[in-house]
Amino acid sequence: MLVKHSSSTVLRRQQFLVRTLCGSRTHLPKLIRATMSSKSEAADAESVLRTVTPSLDPKRHKGQAAVIGGCREYTGAPYFAAISALKIGADLSHVFCTKDAAPVIKSYSPELIVHPVLEESYTISQFSEEEKRKVEDKVIGEVDKWMERFDCLVIGPGLGRDPFLLECVSKIMLLAKKSNVPFVVDGDGLFLVTNSIDLVKSYPLAVLTPNVNEYKRLVQKVLNCEVDEENAGDQLRSLAKQIGGVTILRKGKTDLISNGEIVKSVSIYGSPRRCGGQGDILSGGVAVFLSWAQQLKSDPERNFSPSESPAILGCIAASGLLRKAAALAFTKHKRSTLTSDIIECLGESLEDICPAS
Amino acid sequence: MLVKHSSSTVLRRQQFLVRTLCGSRTHLPKLIRATMSSKSEAADAESVLRTVTPSLDPKRHKGQAAVIGGCREYTGAPYFAAISALKIGADLSHVFCTKDAAPVIKSYSPELIVHPVLEESYTISQFSEEEKRKVEDKVIGEVDKWMERFDCLVIGPGLGRDPFLLECVSKIMLLAKKSNVPFVVDGDGLFLVTNSIDLVKSYPLAVLTPNVNEYKRLVQKVLNCEVDEENAGDQLRSLAKQIGGVTILRKGKTDLISNGEIVKSVSIYGSPRRCGGQGDILSGGVAVFLSWAQQLKSDPERNFSPSESPAILGCIAASGLLRKAAALAFTKHKRSTLTSDIIECLGESLEDICPAS
Repeated sequence: MLVKHSSSTVLRRQQFLVRTLCGSRTHLPKLIRATMSSKSEAADAESVLRTVTPSLDPKRHKGQAAVIGGCREYTGAPYFAAISALKIGADLSHVFCTKDAAPVIKSYSPELIVHPVLEESYTISQFSEEEKRKVEDKVIGEVDKWMERFDCLVIGPGLGRDPFLLECVSKIMLLAKKSNVPFVVDGDGLFLVTNSIDLVKSYPLAVLTPNVNEYKRLVQKVLNCEVDEENAGDQLRSLAKQIGGVTILRKGKTDLISNGEIVKSVSIYGSPRRCGGQGDILSGGVAVFLSWAQQLKSDPERNFSPSESPAILGCIAASGLLRKAAALAFTKHKRSTLTSDIIECLGESLEDICPAS
Repeated sequence: MLVKHSSSTVLRRQQFLVRTLCGSRTHLPKLIRATMSSKSEAADAESVLRTVTPSLDPKRHKGQAAVIGGCREYTGAPYFAAISALKIGADLSHVFCTKDAAPVIKSYSPELIVHPVLEESYTISQFSEEEKRKVEDKVIGEVDKWMERFDCLVIGPGLGRDPFLLECVSKIMLLAKKSNVPFVVDGDGLFLVTNSIDLVKSYPLAVLTPNVNEYKRLVQKVLNCEVDEENAGDQLRSLAKQIGGVTILRKGKTDLISNGEIVKSVSIYGSPRRCGGQGDILSGGVAVFLSWAQQLKSDPERNFSPSESPAILGCIAASGLLRKAAALAFTKHKRSTLTSDIIECLGESLEDICPAS
């Protein structure tokens, strides 16, 4: 059970980090041990999903997710990520976005808690440097006061590339790291991280979920070379290692996942229909499954080995579920399948793989 | 029949209060008398629900509910409470919220009447004390002119904790008491009441619906001790008594209800899936069923004893209905069940327990 008040939360995260970094005895279920191989291999995504998903017990907290994203231009992506987290099973799902984006994102669903706290440059263009710093402090403060409640952040869906906004988001990443809150970086968050790799470097609770282009830029920036499809697994492992062991989920026809040590692949199900927004469902899903895997890992009765990574397990589970839901939505909607249709299929797909009772 | 024009409404409420406080002869149906036990006992929630729900007669008014809540940050909670009141059977459902929240809440549904009248501190930060008092008077006036139409208020869903806004809401509670309008206090309304217990003390038409944390704070504040799970019923009774006989519905795996005299429990149905927002459905439900029970009590042909409490009956009926709807929604949506899914099941659940014809 996730304890909500501050000291316990911090303590829990510290205990978890100690276990992660220093190791502990292992009594792993076979399905999870399978992900520990040092070679690239196909993950049994459905089994991982069943293992990671907690039993339904009303007393058991399923966690709170928060999406940092949503600006004057983009409002769909943060909604997709946040509502997916909720549909998969989070107790509550928050969005931190700009003032312009908030009423729109709120109107998509009364289920989300939407905080209109981010600022873009155009709202502060007349401000002095000192006033700008005050605004920045206020933005950070508004997120900070909630941080202890969050079990995972998703940083980037619909974030945009406004310099002032990205500056604030850099600070939010530092806050999350200080509080040991895991975060998934996607979309424009990856633009930010690719240009400031230190923001995530060596943070074991960071997950990057690049698409083809975002991956290409990361490889160029960090490894100083081009994408090598022939040795995709090895290159991904090198990239993750070079960034200090963060976890990377490289989205593609086959999803590849590595934390610099092991490389796993997920290629079950999937849909031939591409639609923008699938990546947002994935990022919301990784956030929830990662926090559940972490919860499992912090359970003293289920000691996990240090080489067992909640981030890897979260990526495998989320990838498997998205692919199943996309396949199911495609059977229903064919060429007209939209992201919302896939989200509508998350519950049925989850129930099919991992029945609630 | 609820008479809508002012003098009759006030008269009706005075007559009701006289009966409540001074007693009258009893000819009670067995199902209702069952709630009069002085010991904690399981309520027959379905029977209470059938007894309290009025027959469908186009000439018969089903009452108007009003939710006081909804601010810049929260818009989902007041929507859930207000739409639930409507789905259960209120004729009309109002929301009084801030100017920022109103367009969003309106966008969730064209069924609600949304009044953008509340103000938060940031909109009046430049005002003098005198100007602030004028704004406060205006806010109170906007609510007051509607008060006589309301059969019950729900105070608190998505209210937030802005000091100026809470100051206005305190005055709205005084207004409601003056007009003998019952009110249900939930969410941030409980934060307000816990810090200013006199706002509800000894008002027999007040219902508090705390969750685990809100209950803990109430117990600490009022009884000066910690929550005693071993003697949960007795402690709840003491708490309600200490607050002068208000009714408290303590939400949990089993819902416990007391007015300082009797203690009832409801544990039928329910869902293992937690989702934020169920409490809002409950508060909207209590408002409607309470007003119906009050209507029944004010019917001279169905004399109720003074120990029979419309508030207790309203809590039992609302708890039973929410639990049934949550169970039904869970069979349909399993782990992905959201608050909106439960609201969609209110009608079917009500029909199942208490057929319209």
